Amino acid sequence: MIEAAERIVARCRQIAGYTEIAGETTRTFLSAPMREVHELLRGWMVAAGMQVRVDAAGNLRGVWSGVDGDARRLLIGSHLDSVPNAGAFDGVLGVVFGLAVVEELRGRRLPFAIEVVGFSEEEGVRFSKPFLGSMALMGRLSAELLALTDRSGVSVAEAIHAYGLNVAELPAAAIAPGTFAYLEVHIEQGPVLESEAIALGVVEALVGQTRLALTFTGQANHAGTTPMHLRHDAMAAAAEWIAAVEGFATLSAGLVATVGKVETWPGAGNVIAGRVTATLDVRHAQDGVRAENVEALLGLAQDAATSRGVQVSWETTMEQSAVPMDARLTQLLEHAAARAGVTSLRTTSGAGHDAMVMAEQVPSAMLFVRSPGGLSHHPDEAVIVDDVAAAMATVMEFLPLLGDDRAERKDKHA
Amino acid sequence: MIEAAERIVARCRQIAGYTEIAGETTRTFLSAPMREVHELLRGWMVAAGMQVRVDAAGNLRGVWSGVDGDARRLLIGSHLDSVPNAGAFDGVLGVVFGLAVVEELRGRRLPFAIEVVGFSEEEGVRFSKPFLGSMALMGRLSAELLALTDRSGVSVAEAIHAYGLNVAELPAAAIAPGTFAYLEVHIEQGPVLESEAIALGVVEALVGQTRLALTFTGQANHAGTTPMHLRHDAMAAAAEWIAAVEGFATLSAGLVATVGKVETWPGAGNVIAGRVTATLDVRHAQDGVRAENVEALLGLAQDAATSRGVQVSWETTMEQSAVPMDARLTQLLEHAAARAGVTSLRTTSGAGHDAMVMAEQVPSAMLFVRSPGGLSHHPDEAVIVDDVAAAMATVMEFLPLLGDDRAERKDKHA
Repeated sequence: MIEAAERIVARCRQIAGYTEIAGETTRTFLSAPMREVHELLRGWMVAAGMQVRVDAAGNLRGVWSGVDGDARRLLIGSHLDSVPNAGAFDGVLGVVFGLAVVEELRGRRLPFAIEVVGFSEEEGVRFSKPFLGSMALMGRLSAELLALTDRSGVSVAEAIHAYGLNVAELPAAAIAPGTFAYLEVHIEQGPVLESEAIALGVVEALVGQTRLALTFTGQANHAGTTPMHLRHDAMAAAAEWIAAVEGFATLSAGLVATVGKVETWPGAGNVIAGRVTATLDVRHAQDGVRAENVEALLGLAQDAATSRGVQVSWETTMEQSAVPMDARLTQLLEHAAARAGVTSLRTTSGAGHDAMVMAEQVPSAMLFVRSPGGLSHHPDEAVIVDDVAAAMATVMEFLPLLGDDRAERKDKHA
Repeated sequence: MIEAAERIVARCRQIAGYTEIAGETTRTFLSAPMREVHELLRGWMVAAGMQVRVDAAGNLRGVWSGVDGDARRLLIGSHLDSVPNAGAFDGVLGVVFGLAVVEELRGRRLPFAIEVVGFSEEEGVRFSKPFLGSMALMGRLSAELLALTDRSGVSVAEAIHAYGLNVAELPAAAIAPGTFAYLEVHIEQGPVLESEAIALGVVEALVGQTRLALTFTGQANHAGTTPMHLRHDAMAAAAEWIAAVEGFATLSAGLVATVGKVETWPGAGNVIAGRVTATLDVRHAQDGVRAENVEALLGLAQDAATSRGVQVSWETTMEQSAVPMDARLTQLLEHAAARAGVTSLRTTSGAGHDAMVMAEQVPSAMLFVRSPGGLSHHPDEAVIVDDVAAAMATVMEFLPLLGDDRAERKDKHA
């Protein structure tokens, strides 16, 4: 498997050279370098005996037929777009990996087809809206989404046309009726696997998120003439709360809570802050646990404010439910790793992925590959070749398990 | 005394109408409206029988001679410049008050002269350097200070010339040799007197200040994929410290410590803060106490950082010693208040005042007048007429005590 893994890594690094900005990797939805990446991958896919098309949303789709044709399909994929100044593996790894799985079959036909998907858009950079690629497979690229415009005023529909594609053909981008499973191999983008010295993570769920914007309103006053007991210090209230958020989250298994942005008004060293804004980002794999904790954290904010005669208010800026991966596929993936002699860790994903959208209609599973240094969205983003080989060994064991499996296409939102 | 107090308040409000910006009160050093204020006050001073001049630094100086002429002088004053969008009383009150003291003598001569000073510059708005007016009285307007430029590139020396004054005459702005005391009546600019329901404060000392800029350096990371125990969250470290600063200062009598400005990098809701900067402003009337507390607070910062694998560094941006008021004058002022039947509170000034500079060479005392709402540097800045009357009654009792007193001009820095 090492040869396959080395080829995967080399191809990811080669693809990283296709960029809108010389000297770094920046490749957004339907950009010029994306066309070149499509041609490159199309060549490799055709050489592997696959039938290749680019759908009307710009997703690259390569099919390796099964013994009985294409009726039943396993989708393997991830995205080909990147954040600005990206690394080589976020997204691209999962696409190149899917191709390598087909290559690893060495001409063998399975009881089902494999469709490798290179999603055109996941990061949301160009239109400030992520998952446009996978939404096309769900038949969800609505007129509203097609009307979104980028910084240049170009709409999604216009971008599709400019790329030489036809919006009228979007219905054909939807998944084939016999699609019974989706598998996404992705770098972890976090430090958990590295800290546990484990190569692979089997993802149980993509966490739900609540994001809030809090405002602490006290009273701006002279830092010299206002004694401590007569203050209504918005920053002191916010600080007590931020420290409490960290302590609280540390005690709750699987919970992460982050205050990443804080601003002070008037923002002078010699003036007590009269107003402080702070973000709160709370994530957990179980929506109920997340909701309970958000409520508790807001209670802590209220306490920290009230004890100082400070007011606190908040608004929810994002609320997204957790997306569990398919329990049976996840178990099969874990079995497969064990059969391949690879140690894996059951984990959750703290970030969003195409699998989150695909899971709406297709039983889905995700396999994480350890991220050295926990690094992602950074030029130094990396993978360990042995880890990629372990992932390949796992997936090659997963395929026969899947062939035996009776998984069927889920109803929408099932 | 009520009539005098009402006249003082009315004059302060009248002077507030002289402004560089219509609709608010903004009157900086040697600005056009300052000339009109000089003319207005000159008229009132001359009517009161005083000899008036504007010295080469733009300070208005009015002398009411004593029985033996002008050899021994009590200075009463404060400043005539303002911050942008100011109130009517900060500074101006003390000048108008000095004039009213002379008027209240109704022609009577004292054993010493009274020189009322309207300092031209205290706030530091135009040249980002405060106390230029009082420094001229100390003979400290050096070539370096005269070369400072405002936003338009005009130097202090040029501004003096443009105002029709002569830099060569600056030596004559220095205090007369027989100046034996300085008295400044000023609004408190804080909430202490109001919270104690006391009209007047007798200032023991102007506090010393240390200002620092701290930088907490952790590691920016994905808020979703980085579990709590693998974080190096610079904001959490800073927050624990900021809350501790407040708690620590609250336990130390007379100490104020403020974190007024906080900034986060990269400053996104879904990214753990990798770097946080925070200001620290520490003030106390005793330099030793301040130094000890600064050291302790920095120790708390170190602890909050170390426990999270975060680095913390700092630089001192300002270090200013406390300035005690003259002990004997302060005691006389307190006696005077008691004799006038007025309750006063021994207090410290958390802000800087002209008295801080004057005290270098002249035994100085300060009388604070309660600030409703603790408000200053704000259009709603106010005084209570009864409080001003109480201050007038106090100073009228202070004058005879001072006449009996053997206070002499201090040596520099004594």
